[in-house]
Amino acid sequence: MSASELQRIVVVGASAAGLKAAARARRLLPDTAITVLDERDFISYGACGLPYYLSGDVEDLDALRKTNYGAVRDPEYFAAAKGLDVRTGCRAERLDPATRQIFVRGPLGAGESVLAYDALVIATGAGPRSLPGVEPGEAVGFFHTPEDVQVLRRGLETGRIGEVVVVGAGFIGCELAGAFGELWGCGVTLLEAAPWVLPRILDADMAALAAGELRRNDVTLHLDAPVTRAVTEQGRAVVEAGGRTIHADRAVVVVGVQPRVELARAAGLQLGKLGGLVVDGQLRTDLPHVYAAGDCIEVIHAVTGRPCYLPLGSLANRQGRVVGDNLAGIPSRFGAVTGSVCLKIFGWNVAATGLSAQQARDGGLAVRAAWGSFFDRAHYHPEHKLLFLKLVYEQGSRRLLGLQALGEGDAVKRVDVFSALLQRGGRLEDLLDLEFCYSPPYNVALDPLHGIACVALNREERGLAGLGPASVEPGGEAPGGRFVMDLRLAEEIGPEEPALPGALNIPIHELRARVAEIPRDRPLLCVCAMGTRSAEAVVWLASQGFQDIVYLAGGMNLQSAR
Amino acid sequence: MSASELQRIVVVGASAAGLKAAARARRLLPDTAITVLDERDFISYGACGLPYYLSGDVEDLDALRKTNYGAVRDPEYFAAAKGLDVRTGCRAERLDPATRQIFVRGPLGAGESVLAYDALVIATGAGPRSLPGVEPGEAVGFFHTPEDVQVLRRGLETGRIGEVVVVGAGFIGCELAGAFGELWGCGVTLLEAAPWVLPRILDADMAALAAGELRRNDVTLHLDAPVTRAVTEQGRAVVEAGGRTIHADRAVVVVGVQPRVELARAAGLQLGKLGGLVVDGQLRTDLPHVYAAGDCIEVIHAVTGRPCYLPLGSLANRQGRVVGDNLAGIPSRFGAVTGSVCLKIFGWNVAATGLSAQQARDGGLAVRAAWGSFFDRAHYHPEHKLLFLKLVYEQGSRRLLGLQALGEGDAVKRVDVFSALLQRGGRLEDLLDLEFCYSPPYNVALDPLHGIACVALNREERGLAGLGPASVEPGGEAPGGRFVMDLRLAEEIGPEEPALPGALNIPIHELRARVAEIPRDRPLLCVCAMGTRSAEAVVWLASQGFQDIVYLAGGMNLQSAR
Repeated sequence: MSASELQRIVVVGASAAGLKAAARARRLLPDTAITVLDERDFISYGACGLPYYLSGDVEDLDALRKTNYGAVRDPEYFAAAKGLDVRTGCRAERLDPATRQIFVRGPLGAGESVLAYDALVIATGAGPRSLPGVEPGEAVGFFHTPEDVQVLRRGLETGRIGEVVVVGAGFIGCELAGAFGELWGCGVTLLEAAPWVLPRILDADMAALAAGELRRNDVTLHLDAPVTRAVTEQGRAVVEAGGRTIHADRAVVVVGVQPRVELARAAGLQLGKLGGLVVDGQLRTDLPHVYAAGDCIEVIHAVTGRPCYLPLGSLANRQGRVVGDNLAGIPSRFGAVTGSVCLKIFGWNVAATGLSAQQARDGGLAVRAAWGSFFDRAHYHPEHKLLFLKLVYEQGSRRLLGLQALGEGDAVKRVDVFSALLQRGGRLEDLLDLEFCYSPPYNVALDPLHGIACVALNREERGLAGLGPASVEPGGEAPGGRFVMDLRLAEEIGPEEPALPGALNIPIHELRARVAEIPRDRPLLCVCAMGTRSAEAVVWLASQGFQDIVYLAGGMNLQSAR
Repeated sequence: MSASELQRIVVVGASAAGLKAAARARRLLPDTAITVLDERDFISYGACGLPYYLSGDVEDLDALRKTNYGAVRDPEYFAAAKGLDVRTGCRAERLDPATRQIFVRGPLGAGESVLAYDALVIATGAGPRSLPGVEPGEAVGFFHTPEDVQVLRRGLETGRIGEVVVVGAGFIGCELAGAFGELWGCGVTLLEAAPWVLPRILDADMAALAAGELRRNDVTLHLDAPVTRAVTEQGRAVVEAGGRTIHADRAVVVVGVQPRVELARAAGLQLGKLGGLVVDGQLRTDLPHVYAAGDCIEVIHAVTGRPCYLPLGSLANRQGRVVGDNLAGIPSRFGAVTGSVCLKIFGWNVAATGLSAQQARDGGLAVRAAWGSFFDRAHYHPEHKLLFLKLVYEQGSRRLLGLQALGEGDAVKRVDVFSALLQRGGRLEDLLDLEFCYSPPYNVALDPLHGIACVALNREERGLAGLGPASVEPGGEAPGGRFVMDLRLAEEIGPEEPALPGALNIPIHELRARVAEIPRDRPLLCVCAMGTRSAEAVVWLASQGFQDIVYLAGGMNLQSAR
């Protein structure tokens, strides 16, 4: 059927993907009837803003469903401003592909009705995952709908919620720790079943930094703590996890989402191994005339080439446009994704794209990693902040696989630029060629991405290997009984920035003069603040015949932040 | 000569490029003697930080030549920490390529000496340009050396400088307007010979926005005002420009820099049309064993494929590494550049990369442009700010040519990401595929680069053309006698955000109901705040049979910022 024959488009789901598809199709097909169904009444809101409504950064829940000029995106708005027939309180119950009909329950009191379609868009989104033993109730809930959040905010405003347990240290869980803790001053306990926080986007070594920021802000963090029970008892939450029983005013369960595919499954549409709808590059399902987009589909990962499930608002919006184009007969493709994500944890920016080292290894790749500490702006500029990077790449091919960026510094910019290379199959060398705007309030002369590329290339081309930050436990001994040389100035070392036990302090500018103090019969570990001086020391010491020398990648700044 | 035979490397110039090359070569060639010459005593400082020392953001001039851990980068530092023989106060006077000798004057009292080299690096940088009629003196000076800046800062601190004339509204001139005006409260007059500010990086229409920010901060700006005389009279500056005579406590002439190539020219090295040294992809000059890097060379522009002169610290640092590698026998190339630059003008961020529309047209390209206003973060997040973009691309091929980004919003990130595409010959469609981290404190769900790509694609694919912002004079009539329809809500229009004269206000959600009010016999101009609603209105009105309708790209927000 050509686009000009499309008389009736039905979209199921009035969130980002569905409404974007509908609005785009409307502009391209002025004469087609376009109906959008949603069982909810509160639609088209910025769900990613919910933690910021909870925190108080956003005053009013309605702000999340307003346009940037203040119009509330309700059915009246869509009818008047967009020419769309948006029906809330209407549940799409069943789909008959043969007759191209969809059976709808509601709105309230209306019973069941039937809509015929020439093209259908499934944008049913995702719902919260739960765990066995979790019983939603008065003091135990999810964080998914505006209603979930309003209950919490009211509890905070009235002082009824003072102690909170957040179950799941993923994306939302970490944001919520900040929302509850920073602005409302709640006591927050964060529970994570995995051995580290943010396990889907960070490796253990970088997650330790994020955990550090949580702990520095008084979040009680329990890792390896799978929740086996979360119930309401006498109006309070009781949570059992990893042998602990925790009592709080409220438990919030945020252990991820899963695609909502009941309608699609019942109609026999193909589902992937990850539970989402399978679509092609034009976001067509395996049923003719049926598209799907948003949090209910699986997409292709740019690095692995395999399906992945990435329920991200950024992708949903882009997918909506692609579907709108295709509905109108403009062939449009949604490409492979890198999975770029970011979040704020108290004062830290956390961003990542591509694969973590763990994920890459699990996928059978030969993985190498590089770590580094950098300033995000000229160090003499008052706004400069630390930024920690972990670069993941493939051994041999030097193909880029992923980047993890954390710190008070501007992590997001580096991940966004890196993602552009990652989409194009970039290699280590491509990072060196990147061009960045430079002025002291915005960057350093060599961007941290140049810096981390040099760290990796020095390893690949010259064997200059840094020990990963996790190889030294904070305050612990150097690994493998290595003799530790600390290249910092004496004044850089102190209670806030301690040395490793037994370290010999030889500032880098004294190294050449004091080389005789360094034992030649022991393996060496060079450390400094950022990793740069210690790497230089390794190079020079090697030229002087020292053997078995390594440096601590990312330096003591990275250690201190853990 | 292979790298292992290199006994003696001489580098002329102890700034970013020269010292980076020397330090890199040192690490790769531990046994080679490396000498760095510079006629100055104050070396290796972050010249891009000088405006921030002037402003007071940087307290101490020495901060600009300290490492990020506080060591002063003087010859003792380079000897002890880097193993480099850096000789200040030593002027390289003459080069004999045949014997591979360089004749050196100084240090003070040392007379002339001769250094032999196996490889030479010319990194002589750039010097300030001047103008006929400019007489440097007590009240007239440049802004190039630390000494220049110290004189100014002392004058500010002692109150001797209260009124300043800045000659040249380029990069440095605009930064200085802020440095003098914002923190020191000086009266600032800024003179520019061109018809608009920042003529090398912005088109007239976007420069009007930057000029707006200057004027809003009480900078007196005179355009089309070439300076014909700048002299000291009775201890004060007298400047004549475009028929005006301006008196001030001080005049600062910042009309660009030119490559310092006296040494190279005398030795017969090839110079390009732009005055810089000609180098190949490995940064070799046309003399054997002689490399060049930094502000004294010409580089190849990624978009034009032609030589350009871009004296940027970011490039100099990357070039230094490339030279160091090549010196050591590791073949390394410096690729074509996009020319990404940024600067702060009071509260605004200004960034650009690639070609402006004007430059592209001057280069013989068929140019199209798209303009847009965007928020840089979720509009409900308290930190969201406006960002204005102009995208320049080639008609037909849709090849990306350049981007200009200005506003209180995060301009630099978008330019940095765009640059990665520009380097790779990206097209409009590639912008749509970019993946950005999204979370309300960091971005909107669809990045402004997605937005501006849609603006351009809507034009190319569907003829939806926006009028450029310069087609409407602030407060002026609509071009071509068009009937103006303002699609904003009534409450968006007011003294701060006025309507165009004679505009009919029909909020977008009333458009369908009130279409009868719109004259069918006149050409129409649709306007709104950001450009989005008015573009939608054009599409819908066209579907209703209206003809000759355009919208105002970037909307009234862009107009108000001019």
